[in-house]
Amino acid sequence: MTAEETVTGVDAAGGRPVVPARGAQRPLGLAEVGVTGGFWAELQATNAGATLEHCESWMERLGWLANFDRVASGTTGPERPGWSFSDSEVYKLVEAAAWEYGRTGAPSADAMVRRLTARIAAAQDADGYLSTCYGHGGQDARYSDLETGHELYNTGHLLQAAVARLRTTGADPLVDVARRAADHVCAEFGPDGRQGVCGHPEIEVGLAEFGRALGAGRYVEQARLFLDRRGRGILRDIPLGRAYFQDDVPVREATVFRGHAVRALYLSAGAVDVAVDLGDDDLLGAVARQWDHTVERRTYLTGGMGSRHQDEGFGEDWELPADRAYCETCAGVASVMVSWRLYLATGDVRYADLMERTFYNVVATSPRSDGRAFFYANPLHQRTAAGVGDDDTVSPRAEGGTRAAWFDVSCCPTNVARTLASWQAYAASSGPRELTLLQYAPARIATGFDDGGVLAIEVDTAYPADGTVTVRVADAPAHAVMLRLRVPPWAGGAVLSEGGRTTVVAPGFAVVDRPLVPGEQIRLVLPVAPRLTWPDRRVDAVRGCVAVERGPLVLCAESVDLPAAVTLDDLLVDPSAPPVPHDDGAMLRTAGGDDIVLIPYHRWAERGPSAMRIWLPSR
Amino acid sequence: MTAEETVTGVDAAGGRPVVPARGAQRPLGLAEVGVTGGFWAELQATNAGATLEHCESWMERLGWLANFDRVASGTTGPERPGWSFSDSEVYKLVEAAAWEYGRTGAPSADAMVRRLTARIAAAQDADGYLSTCYGHGGQDARYSDLETGHELYNTGHLLQAAVARLRTTGADPLVDVARRAADHVCAEFGPDGRQGVCGHPEIEVGLAEFGRALGAGRYVEQARLFLDRRGRGILRDIPLGRAYFQDDVPVREATVFRGHAVRALYLSAGAVDVAVDLGDDDLLGAVARQWDHTVERRTYLTGGMGSRHQDEGFGEDWELPADRAYCETCAGVASVMVSWRLYLATGDVRYADLMERTFYNVVATSPRSDGRAFFYANPLHQRTAAGVGDDDTVSPRAEGGTRAAWFDVSCCPTNVARTLASWQAYAASSGPRELTLLQYAPARIATGFDDGGVLAIEVDTAYPADGTVTVRVADAPAHAVMLRLRVPPWAGGAVLSEGGRTTVVAPGFAVVDRPLVPGEQIRLVLPVAPRLTWPDRRVDAVRGCVAVERGPLVLCAESVDLPAAVTLDDLLVDPSAPPVPHDDGAMLRTAGGDDIVLIPYHRWAERGPSAMRIWLPSR
Repeated sequence: MTAEETVTGVDAAGGRPVVPARGAQRPLGLAEVGVTGGFWAELQATNAGATLEHCESWMERLGWLANFDRVASGTTGPERPGWSFSDSEVYKLVEAAAWEYGRTGAPSADAMVRRLTARIAAAQDADGYLSTCYGHGGQDARYSDLETGHELYNTGHLLQAAVARLRTTGADPLVDVARRAADHVCAEFGPDGRQGVCGHPEIEVGLAEFGRALGAGRYVEQARLFLDRRGRGILRDIPLGRAYFQDDVPVREATVFRGHAVRALYLSAGAVDVAVDLGDDDLLGAVARQWDHTVERRTYLTGGMGSRHQDEGFGEDWELPADRAYCETCAGVASVMVSWRLYLATGDVRYADLMERTFYNVVATSPRSDGRAFFYANPLHQRTAAGVGDDDTVSPRAEGGTRAAWFDVSCCPTNVARTLASWQAYAASSGPRELTLLQYAPARIATGFDDGGVLAIEVDTAYPADGTVTVRVADAPAHAVMLRLRVPPWAGGAVLSEGGRTTVVAPGFAVVDRPLVPGEQIRLVLPVAPRLTWPDRRVDAVRGCVAVERGPLVLCAESVDLPAAVTLDDLLVDPSAPPVPHDDGAMLRTAGGDDIVLIPYHRWAERGPSAMRIWLPSR
Repeated sequence: MTAEETVTGVDAAGGRPVVPARGAQRPLGLAEVGVTGGFWAELQATNAGATLEHCESWMERLGWLANFDRVASGTTGPERPGWSFSDSEVYKLVEAAAWEYGRTGAPSADAMVRRLTARIAAAQDADGYLSTCYGHGGQDARYSDLETGHELYNTGHLLQAAVARLRTTGADPLVDVARRAADHVCAEFGPDGRQGVCGHPEIEVGLAEFGRALGAGRYVEQARLFLDRRGRGILRDIPLGRAYFQDDVPVREATVFRGHAVRALYLSAGAVDVAVDLGDDDLLGAVARQWDHTVERRTYLTGGMGSRHQDEGFGEDWELPADRAYCETCAGVASVMVSWRLYLATGDVRYADLMERTFYNVVATSPRSDGRAFFYANPLHQRTAAGVGDDDTVSPRAEGGTRAAWFDVSCCPTNVARTLASWQAYAASSGPRELTLLQYAPARIATGFDDGGVLAIEVDTAYPADGTVTVRVADAPAHAVMLRLRVPPWAGGAVLSEGGRTTVVAPGFAVVDRPLVPGEQIRLVLPVAPRLTWPDRRVDAVRGCVAVERGPLVLCAESVDLPAAVTLDDLLVDPSAPPVPHDDGAMLRTAGGDDIVLIPYHRWAERGPSAMRIWLPSR
């Protein structure tokens, strides 16, 4: 660390993944938001209790962890196990464990960070270079394949892991490793260095946040440099075309997210960071416009992005097949990253709306309820009942019919893990005298204002099963504050009860703007009755179909729930009969008069092999 | 050649690609059927006048031909240009030129066969092995990568080329090369040899027909051996799964064509050959059932097969997206190969029906009207107007928006060329006292019967623009013969006029069974007015859409024809107003009251960048 940089410490950063230099909203982190129960607490508990260990044990078993030991001991070689990006899985697991430790203080999570850090650190070269795949013992030379080598991608994830550690624990050996790695990248790829970029964006968002966390502007500057270089054919062309890695058009000139979805979204997240910190509103506007176009025309009902298996990529506008939807789990995570940054920059509620949709229907869909198997692809229609995965086998394919314990390319499990461990950091934001609730869960939230006042609330809700959200004021400043509760776009007729008044509130934000009294209760009721959703008629793939949603949950018909006489291939529903609530899903009438059960999409494929569809033929 | 095998000569084989040992129908070849004008004659003329030279010149330019010279001169190496299967393109071009010479006697086609044969022959090893990619000067060892090496696949195409030469010219240096190659394969992969199969089927169908052409049963036996080995996990597993190369289930146990479409179809063609020649009705029935299932559930309106780009493969049942339809041109060619063999074996008209559909809407769609650019993929919906291809550049991708002069993987141009050059060999068949017309074109057909009688006819028609087919009897035996004319399934209300009678004939065959009189005319009128076609409701991708067909032609809306106020994204047609004929296509009313022009699908993308769709939203 150079003299002008100081770690600002846990309290200052408050366990937040993203801390922009400026913006419309200030994020609240793990230090300010505690989830006390409900839907997300359960997922977090499973993540902590099963998934972290599950990921570590698979990476040990497959030698992805030993790859670091072999570099450290000088015994590595070209036949190293794992893809070139397997290092990043280790870093994402460290990030997950760091957030988990920040969230709960669990010693086991801290111990995981420490033992993995020790092995990672031992593999770092003297000049800061860190890779188990290149540059050692008969391996290809450093940066000899920027298109597919993933070295900078891996480093980006290392930096994100270090940010998690810095913002939850403070200075740490992992942070030292990351700083040396970041310095190496700046030295190697700086203005006078290699004029290259990584085939898989991620270093940009990693550098930007690490620079923020350390107050080291040169890292943000290096991120800007990578962004500026990209989009001009700096990478070798490939059969899938340069759009695959967003090297076809500079990010500020693009009009839509395109190519490989995770690449496009990680890049966009980094672009927002750079735009915000360097005051580049032109760049910020470009990403916001791309988001608009993409969400209108290239995003599934679930929030899933990326319709093509071939290149794990966005297809054309309106190309949204339900059966061949790729909707990679990681693209869901990356979409949340982009939307969160755009929300913080602009305060526009639509970004938080999409985050909720993606959280419930992509991120929560991936892990099996025991936290030990995952969807990689998240199709909206599974035509044939897929076999149950063997939990002892690495799945070679990213098909969507069954959750797999581990994948040959296993980016999704650790991405889910780091997102769940930090979930509440995306649940609320604040302003000078304002607190905004974005995602609903039983929670305790306390945040301070610049004038020293503190607003503390307790949120009680059974959301999303029930639409009532009760906020009890525990502590409040004497002066007026603004409490804002997000009203999702589907929640027409939402009702706010506060200060003796009951009012219908429109989608956007329900606002209470007055002095709050400790002990008082504010109640928002969001109508979560099942509802029919019709597709845009330009989405050819689901013309003549209807979907059913319930609150933020997309529902689906699963073959195991169907009456014997009804098959998913022949299903025809009668949309004139409104869906009615049934357990946490709904019942819907078929044209033949049967009632069929619809369940939350995120829980499909938990009961053995099954077929499934979200969009139901209605004519 | 061993003593018991003799080349039967041109007359005996009559320029026929397929001559089964038994079957319901006997194929008529180039010696018996001459196309004298019309749709296919025009394509054949362009093929002869442009495509053959075009293919040779691209393969020269890219070094695919020089690969043979380099092996011959001992100067080849691992950095050889082209994929491992580029040799097969040369063989398919030789096959095309051989058929072309057989069809027209053009000296230029014969010269092409001879000059290419000389270069091929020079590269053959002393033991018969022939490959420019393996086994020489620093290259990987022979058969070291059966999964992706394509050595046997290449050899299969060499054998098919030799069949074309044998059946049009007779004994020839190319036939000698092929015989040595086939003997090498039998020695290497025989019962006591390598227990392997090729990752890309083709050797089976090549060996079987070459064995037929030479009367060499051991080649058919070797084909059987390859078929029997396959489907038991004999190949290494790959990320796409063993279904990709049909090594998941033995061909006689499979229920549907699956995996990579061209692989599946070449394999099936070989399976029919083996089944027929070895009297294996169980195997024949298995392929026929797979065809039934595939045509019902995995085949596009165009006859195109293979919906997935990812693996160039069949998708699931009913997974038939219009926009992402892969429908590789080669799969269309391969589908014709399978259907022709099944037709000859069974006489079932449905195989000929599918052939017609595929000929007009896949095979004829691929080549640009000048014969110098080709579609690789044949989607049924192009969302965005693709740029016009640069005729001087190799297309790296098999996307469908524009025809390309050549491809990085360039299997389709030569496959089109060999099919067009031999097209009339699929147009008619015969029985003991029967002649059957399957495909309609102006033609002269003359065939002899076992009793020495000759039936000679002249066919006059403007089909498919017009549905009238007139058959003039030029010569006929004194006894009764059966003349059968195929009535396509869409031709309800077809009318047959003969012998002073006019009768309505049902789809299937219109039959005249009596002594024919030289000079008499028989007329079949097929109703080719434009008609609406509705999809099976289980095809989710086109629910709520309708297509328009006209005779055997599938029509499409192309953006360049639309009124300014109508876009393909917003198009909504009014199916209550029947389509009316317009040029060689139709006019159809939109819901907004505009009339839009529909053109034959096979001629789309000839007028600059355009969007296109076959399935038109109707509600």
